[in-house]
Amino acid sequence: MKKTVALISLLGSLACALPAHAQFAKPEDAIKYRKAGFTLMAAHFGRLGAMAQGKVPFDAKAAAENADVLAVVGKLPYTAFVEGSDKGETRAKPEIWKESAKFKEAADNNQAEVAKLVAAAKTGNLDNLKAAFGSAAPTCKACHDHFRKD
Amino acid sequence: MKKTVALISLLGSLACALPAHAQFAKPEDAIKYRKAGFTLMAAHFGRLGAMAQGKVPFDAKAAAENADVLAVVGKLPYTAFVEGSDKGETRAKPEIWKESAKFKEAADNNQAEVAKLVAAAKTGNLDNLKAAFGSAAPTCKACHDHFRKD
Repeated sequence: MKKTVALISLLGSLACALPAHAQFAKPEDAIKYRKAGFTLMAAHFGRLGAMAQGKVPFDAKAAAENADVLAVVGKLPYTAFVEGSDKGETRAKPEIWKESAKFKEAADNNQAEVAKLVAAAKTGNLDNLKAAFGSAAPTCKACHDHFRKD
Repeated sequence: MKKTVALISLLGSLACALPAHAQFAKPEDAIKYRKAGFTLMAAHFGRLGAMAQGKVPFDAKAAAENADVLAVVGKLPYTAFVEGSDKGETRAKPEIWKESAKFKEAADNNQAEVAKLVAAAKTGNLDNLKAAFGSAAPTCKACHDHFRKD
């Protein structure tokens, strides 16, 4: 009995210790959440990319605004690759869970490059933006190539 | 010719003056974007609501984290009700564009209440969170009732 209470207490503490955004009632909620996160991440990453690649004129204010959004939304999808969310309306490959250390490395790499891009986009300097975008973009592709179905 | 150049120049300035997140290549991009924004908004609003309603234990750190995300994602969907995005995979009612002043009022009201909720969730006080959640939730429903298809 004491052991059970201790275990429940421990599980309770663990649940509270989880980041708030790592909690989903159902696997499909996690899938919908991470897709939404990637949609917004791609949109704001893409707007910075359009400036970096000269497709739209560089606008320091717009770059900084996009960076502020990217800084937040770019972290969200990675909280939602929970156990059991490999099935359903998802392009996530089983490798995400089977090779979880490798996936974490790819995700961490992307997160680090996105953080650098955010910082660069807020300097108001187009050359900084170009360089950071050039370094960050391949870390999206690397993860997609290995961990996302076509 | 001079007039055309002046007009193009004016249009160019207007395009640059638009908030970066108000730019979509196609109407369906805007629809996908605003759905993603609402998904994340609802998720983080819901996590604050779960604490406010006693469904999960109050956790001041988690509340503040959710508030930080909500502060950013809660603004995004409203940038994406662009002209032409009333058709397609959307539950947005035509009234959004037909009664645009009324929609803006409802949206502004929601934005104001969400901003208060964000502030309340960061005070670390459950009573503040409860009160702000109680005021904010009806502003979601009001907009859904009038401007969203079932």
